[in-house]
Amino acid sequence: MVSLTSPGPVVGVIGGGQLGRMLGEAAGPLGVELVVADPTPDPPAAPVSRDQLGGDFDDPEVVKELATRADVLTYEIELADPDLLERAGERAGIPVHPSPATLRTIQNKLVQKRRLQEAGVPVPPFRAVDSPADLRETLDELGGSVMVKARRGGYDGRGNLPLEGSTEAESVFDELGGDLMAEAMVPFERELSVIGVKGNGEIRTFPVTETVHREEILRETIAPARTDAATRERAEAVAHDVLDTLDGRGVYGIELFEVSERNDAVEAPDETASETDGGNAILVNEIAPRPHNSGHWTIEGALTSQFEQHLRAVLGWPLGATDCRAPTAIANVLGDVSTAQPAKLGGIEDVLSRPGTKLHWYGKREVRPLRKMGHVTATAIDPDANPDDLLDEVRAARDAVTFES
Amino acid sequence: MVSLTSPGPVVGVIGGGQLGRMLGEAAGPLGVELVVADPTPDPPAAPVSRDQLGGDFDDPEVVKELATRADVLTYEIELADPDLLERAGERAGIPVHPSPATLRTIQNKLVQKRRLQEAGVPVPPFRAVDSPADLRETLDELGGSVMVKARRGGYDGRGNLPLEGSTEAESVFDELGGDLMAEAMVPFERELSVIGVKGNGEIRTFPVTETVHREEILRETIAPARTDAATRERAEAVAHDVLDTLDGRGVYGIELFEVSERNDAVEAPDETASETDGGNAILVNEIAPRPHNSGHWTIEGALTSQFEQHLRAVLGWPLGATDCRAPTAIANVLGDVSTAQPAKLGGIEDVLSRPGTKLHWYGKREVRPLRKMGHVTATAIDPDANPDDLLDEVRAARDAVTFES
Repeated sequence: MVSLTSPGPVVGVIGGGQLGRMLGEAAGPLGVELVVADPTPDPPAAPVSRDQLGGDFDDPEVVKELATRADVLTYEIELADPDLLERAGERAGIPVHPSPATLRTIQNKLVQKRRLQEAGVPVPPFRAVDSPADLRETLDELGGSVMVKARRGGYDGRGNLPLEGSTEAESVFDELGGDLMAEAMVPFERELSVIGVKGNGEIRTFPVTETVHREEILRETIAPARTDAATRERAEAVAHDVLDTLDGRGVYGIELFEVSERNDAVEAPDETASETDGGNAILVNEIAPRPHNSGHWTIEGALTSQFEQHLRAVLGWPLGATDCRAPTAIANVLGDVSTAQPAKLGGIEDVLSRPGTKLHWYGKREVRPLRKMGHVTATAIDPDANPDDLLDEVRAARDAVTFES
Repeated sequence: MVSLTSPGPVVGVIGGGQLGRMLGEAAGPLGVELVVADPTPDPPAAPVSRDQLGGDFDDPEVVKELATRADVLTYEIELADPDLLERAGERAGIPVHPSPATLRTIQNKLVQKRRLQEAGVPVPPFRAVDSPADLRETLDELGGSVMVKARRGGYDGRGNLPLEGSTEAESVFDELGGDLMAEAMVPFERELSVIGVKGNGEIRTFPVTETVHREEILRETIAPARTDAATRERAEAVAHDVLDTLDGRGVYGIELFEVSERNDAVEAPDETASETDGGNAILVNEIAPRPHNSGHWTIEGALTSQFEQHLRAVLGWPLGATDCRAPTAIANVLGDVSTAQPAKLGGIEDVLSRPGTKLHWYGKREVRPLRKMGHVTATAIDPDANPDDLLDEVRAARDAVTFES
């Protein structure tokens, strides 16, 4: 029998950014408390956490202290150190979720892709790249245009560069550093995402989300995705296969490409994909071992939010229902400034006045160009609302706010 | 233009109980921070507040310090001292919402009722009671059964005693103390509540809620109330009239009786009530100048929660839409123990496993008999769900949890 005490269970989180903040917002009603480790003074998660430990993510003393304060360890940032987490968890006798092994696999995009490929999960054609010459050769093999990726440390588009033609191979190699991989540029119909969750012996997926990126940064999402039912079903099946390859409880963001079957990027048809009739093919782009920007819509739009779900999962509690309550779109509020400055977001009365629209502010002290500062959610009041209109609505709300004075 | 900064505006709150905690949960996404004043060590609101000031609610130094830390002062408990708030607000040059004058009026149930009556708002027949002899006389006048109320300081049924026949007049008088009033016992069809909000020049009401009390303590609510449209409309009209008599921004809980027109307790038909054709009569029972237990359903069930709404109101921001997202019932989790003990709630896996059901835990360290420890919310997944079924569902979820080991 699961019991709740006061104070309740403590989840120790590496990272105190916006994902930590939204975890903290979900923790209150559940009686769960957070302690976060983050080097930034007063990071986004601080006001909703019981306590913050300062110091770097890879400071052994910080991770060790976090483990002594917590009932379970988790992380909201891939920069967490799997070895330190493993040792600290073992020493304190508490679990780490998702498992350090999973974090290790996912941290290296090349290892991640190989693991998926070995498990029969459909991925775009990819190659390891160790030199500019290697990159030029790979470019030829993969059809003349590729996405070059640093194997480690990238986020929000950093660490990824598109390359078309071999003239810039040298500079791309230099810019991203030596430890690279290249993937065939997939001419997708849509980018999709599935938020999946592994609990104590159970796996669930949220409805498929459509994601819109510009300059490699997520700008908007629409849930459910505006694709056909067969493709949505296939995406969920692929997500289930991905979750089966991963070890440890928690929420995972699974980014996907929806590709027309006639497209050459789809190599051999895989077993999963062929189980479902009709619809487009699904390729796995990347996996995040944590709540993901493409799942923020679940706060208002699903019966259980991805953040509540992550807390339930890492604590070994029953998972919540993942059903969509109403079609929901979100738009990220990015820093629309040219230089870093103190954060002051103007025009919020427009967002606050729109029925069905919600503001989520991350509380970052400084706005920087394209930094994720918050998001706006528009949930359909009419369940038969047109998703295009919902996207227009949320874009208009987002465009009404600005950091420029 | 309304701007949001980091750190955001600070709302200073007298009281750090569950209402403060749910205010704090609503504050995060808005970028608003709370500082709460509460004498209890680590009260419910502490984990979601920036800071807690210890000391009694009527400690002038605490209220003064709270004012220097905040951009606006409010309260989540009627025990707040209106004079101290007024002085502290003036000295710090910040507003107090709702106004200290409103708090003064509402704190004294007799003054509250007289003010409503003067404004033409329908209320049950009532009398001031100053002695047991007075009480016996009032009992005769008001039809032989009355609710005796302490004019000040009552909450959760404390301070209220039903009286039928004059034999116990003496003991009731002694038990409640000298400063009393008595109201005709209204044979209502239903108890209703309207959560109203006064913003910066705007007034809104949430859909009418049905409330179920036992032993003077709220047990469950169902929204929208299971009454006819004409009665709901009348209840909202009465709530608007109540809001018009009150000064200061914020959320108000307005408790109502729905009474058959044929009932004698309905004295003269008032103007408001007669504007609407059909339906039952509405009498105002009591007003709370703060978010109210009967509005907890708005967290999941309305486009804007009463807690977000209160923050918007006291900050002078635009109010949010009050529409119902889906029929919603809640059940309070009360201490089902015979003596005070450390809080440990068992059986939560049942609540966590029901789709559409949410647990809200208040984080109180000690459970006491009938103490409000949390609540469970059931939101309809099917918009045409039968409200009776929803009430059954939330009662079953609530009954599955227990503090008894």
